[in-house]
Amino acid sequence: MNALLKEIRHNPLLWLLVFEPVVLTAEKLKPEAHTWLFVLSVLAIVPLAALLSHATESVAGKTGDAGGGLLNATLGNLTELVIALAALRAGQYLLVKASIAGAIVTNTLFMLGASFLLGGLKYHVQEYNRISARMQAGLLFLAIVALLIPSAVSVADSAAGAAFTQQLSVCLSVLLIVAYGWGMVFSLQTHRELFASAEAGEAGEAPWPMGLALATLAGVTVLVALVSEVFVESVQKAAEAFGMSPAFVGFIVVALVGAAAEMASAFSGARKNRLDLSVGIALGSASQIALFVAPVLVLVSYVLGPTPMTLEFWPGAVVMMLIATLTAALVTNSGRSAWFVGVLVLMVYVIFAMTLYLLPPRAQ
Amino acid sequence: MNALLKEIRHNPLLWLLVFEPVVLTAEKLKPEAHTWLFVLSVLAIVPLAALLSHATESVAGKTGDAGGGLLNATLGNLTELVIALAALRAGQYLLVKASIAGAIVTNTLFMLGASFLLGGLKYHVQEYNRISARMQAGLLFLAIVALLIPSAVSVADSAAGAAFTQQLSVCLSVLLIVAYGWGMVFSLQTHRELFASAEAGEAGEAPWPMGLALATLAGVTVLVALVSEVFVESVQKAAEAFGMSPAFVGFIVVALVGAAAEMASAFSGARKNRLDLSVGIALGSASQIALFVAPVLVLVSYVLGPTPMTLEFWPGAVVMMLIATLTAALVTNSGRSAWFVGVLVLMVYVIFAMTLYLLPPRAQ
Amino acid sequence: MNALLKEIRHNPLLWLLVFEPVVLTAEKLKPEAHTWLFVLSVLAIVPLAALLSHATESVAGKTGDAGGGLLNATLGNLTELVIALAALRAGQYLLVKASIAGAIVTNTLFMLGASFLLGGLKYHVQEYNRISARMQAGLLFLAIVALLIPSAVSVADSAAGAAFTQQLSVCLSVLLIVAYGWGMVFSLQTHRELFASAEAGEAGEAPWPMGLALATLAGVTVLVALVSEVFVESVQKAAEAFGMSPAFVGFIVVALVGAAAEMASAFSGARKNRLDLSVGIALGSASQIALFVAPVLVLVSYVLGPTPMTLEFWPGAVVMMLIATLTAALVTNSGRSAWFVGVLVLMVYVIFAMTLYLLPPRAQ
Repeated sequence: MNALLKEIRHNPLLWLLVFEPVVLTAEKLKPEAHTWLFVLSVLAIVPLAALLSHATESVAGKTGDAGGGLLNATLGNLTELVIALAALRAGQYLLVKASIAGAIVTNTLFMLGASFLLGGLKYHVQEYNRISARMQAGLLFLAIVALLIPSAVSVADSAAGAAFTQQLSVCLSVLLIVAYGWGMVFSLQTHRELFASAEAGEAGEAPWPMGLALATLAGVTVLVALVSEVFVESVQKAAEAFGMSPAFVGFIVVALVGAAAEMASAFSGARKNRLDLSVGIALGSASQIALFVAPVLVLVSYVLGPTPMTLEFWPGAVVMMLIATLTAALVTNSGRSAWFVGVLVLMVYVIFAMTLYLLPPRAQ
Repeated sequence: MNALLKEIRHNPLLWLLVFEPVVLTAEKLKPEAHTWLFVLSVLAIVPLAALLSHATESVAGKTGDAGGGLLNATLGNLTELVIALAALRAGQYLLVKASIAGAIVTNTLFMLGASFLLGGLKYHVQEYNRISARMQAGLLFLAIVALLIPSAVSVADSAAGAAFTQQLSVCLSVLLIVAYGWGMVFSLQTHRELFASAEAGEAGEAPWPMGLALATLAGVTVLVALVSEVFVESVQKAAEAFGMSPAFVGFIVVALVGAAAEMASAFSGARKNRLDLSVGIALGSASQIALFVAPVLVLVSYVLGPTPMTLEFWPGAVVMMLIATLTAALVTNSGRSAWFVGVLVLMVYVIFAMTLYLLPPRAQ
Repeated sequence: MNALLKEIRHNPLLWLLVFEPVVLTAEKLKPEAHTWLFVLSVLAIVPLAALLSHATESVAGKTGDAGGGLLNATLGNLTELVIALAALRAGQYLLVKASIAGAIVTNTLFMLGASFLLGGLKYHVQEYNRISARMQAGLLFLAIVALLIPSAVSVADSAAGAAFTQQLSVCLSVLLIVAYGWGMVFSLQTHRELFASAEAGEAGEAPWPMGLALATLAGVTVLVALVSEVFVESVQKAAEAFGMSPAFVGFIVVALVGAAAEMASAFSGARKNRLDLSVGIALGSASQIALFVAPVLVLVSYVLGPTPMTLEFWPGAVVMMLIATLTAALVTNSGRSAWFVGVLVLMVYVIFAMTLYLLPPRAQ
């Protein structure tokens, strides 16, 4: 418990934990103050994501290499998963899909671009292991293909088309989860050495004792789930109040909130001239969303959701995911970076954000 | 003749030759047993493809480097060409186009992916000549562009659009064949050394005497033509019986059958840690389909077909060809491979096969 | 003045200057002879582009590294900009957009492909700095993304859609110009050394004295503007007379005319085995059109044009720009070239030209 308090004292991000009771109380007292509840729930999720990330790493560190890696890989995007589950239960499939696509785009473009920029402002040219970067960009590309196909092969005839898209989505989801499993065998067992530097780097902070870590993991997950409910309920009304389109909220706001903790690690890696670490976190996290979070949500929608969810995305989101992936493949190809590469990758992200912000609500 | 018998005794694949008389007799006796005729014709084509491949190589070996390479390159996809010609004469343009697109996708994804997987199960990391791999991936990409354009620039107005697509297809076909010719000058004459390892490798088996090779070439081509007729006539009905869509049959079944012999070479190369050979066969064969087989079929359709055939593909097939090519470019970029790269490339292939299998028949 | 006359005597391209008075007189005497005026104006623009290019370089050479680079970068596509402004004032937005897309495609495919071919006919294999080539291909890709988005995210509802596209185009234009500014800080200030070889090479010819250079710059720009008016007025009628579609004229004819001078530099670099120079001119010029010329035209359309112009392109043009960019990224990836690479890149260009030539007029 001391370790937890010490952590909170040293990490200003965690001071935001004060918003947990605030948001939950506010939701009881003023359930109709959507805009405020939205802002409070965003502020409340950020420190929880950071705690979740640290707890996962601590448990992972104790259970040994392979098991720890497995845990880390599976729970690394737990925040995104819990938020998406809350939206899924509420039947807000548009928000779920926007947050999946947005998490992929945000991790690939914003996290990567900002890492290149922050690192590039300190170092003239940064070099990183381009072999593992290429392999990760390749994996990400292949993962994205599975998300593109149901939208690319759309069927005009609506009744047959709906049945087809649903069948295909389930089959693809099972396939993706299997591929994800083999991917872990690859990165944690047979070819561990290719991914070594990234893992070593993440364990920079002092690990917690096992009991504390497990308790934090359980407790914080419950808290995230509670706050996510408030977030999902308030987001639509708040978006209207702010003049934001639902696509913008799912794509940009949810994705940035969910990935806050990973971003902190990626940026700190870039500032320490360890771009391998930053690239590994950014592309690895995006792959995980595509290969694990998205298919799990499709399968879970058969149990939790009002109707089955498919993997068919809005065509604009497909284009954005594809461009994000090609951008990552192109810029990591050389294994070298300078500040302007970061500026350009961020520019692509800003273009997407701008487009979604301006998009008329009915068009998504 | 002894050489032929010896070959048959040593190569279990050739024992399938027993199906030649079976399928031709069955077609005379039971022309309405479509499902059986389909299965028999598939079994009959596989050994013929292997014989054709060996005979071509033997003739090529005797006629010297440049001439032999020319022959090898032109007849390398003879099986696919003969099957497609049979479908063309029957006016089944959907099947012809599906088999063109399918051959490109199968060679690029299945042959490459399975080579990486089979090689990777034996060797931890395999390295290959990435300069020639990149060049071949580049050629393939440029060849694919020509097949994309008629579909990308579709014209809404139907009468003018049809005339436009037809004119464009003829012009593109002539251009592709010219480019193919220059490509052979490049790979067989001016820059032979870049492609050297792949050619040397293919001549692994004992070559036949010239007379036998030429006779086999002629005789087997006639046999393939006869069996292809049975195959094309039975495929539609058989597909219905098996619950397969015509797109699935053309894309997957025809492509796998036609490429069986080349796959054997590619896989054996991968198991011998000679991935240069595997990559060369896979990408070279795919390029050849795009640059030579497809345009020849368009031009021949003016003579043999009921109406002219165009190069306009079903949009889903265009997406798949493009993704297959980008996948090949990305994964061969590093010149290194491990088993999981093979798994992921195969996964993309399975995704395509799954999509085509589930596709409602009317949608292609 | 002597320097100018000497230049004219040594450069046969400049003998075409005789067409300046011819075209301007012809326009006064026979304003309805559209076909002749078109041909004369094309012949008149080519030498002006060459003079403009030399004058810009001379001024750039005198004003020191950073300032000179800035000038060179900004005025490098002055001819294209002036032609496009004339078309903009005439409200011919289709021609403006076709010439933007065409300049990108022509620089990327024709200039690069012909450089590879011309160099490859003289040298067996040419190597060039692949690190800066990759960076430039990356920048070009990111610049193209901004041009793709308004077309990719099209909105079905027409009224809201038009307002959305207009807002988005203005925001993107501002963003692109800002990115272009940062790009100059990058290439001229902080990371000059990465772009060094290309700049040094361009100053191959004898520089002019400052006064002459500035006077030429001013005078020739006025002349280009005058001739461009004739060109824009006559182009539509002439295209009909030659049986060319407006898309073909904008995409191919205007682009080749505008880039004539830069092509001369790129080709001469390739023949001297300095492909770094050729690749730098081709990709740098294409990036500049996307990042600077296109957004400036959008913003200027609010002042000069009859209605605001957007960044939304005809889908076929989007596909062509994207393919051109991916082609550049793929072929420059290896840092090696041989003649057949040039043939294939040119083939893609011919495919595009062919498609646009055959396209029925109503379809663009």
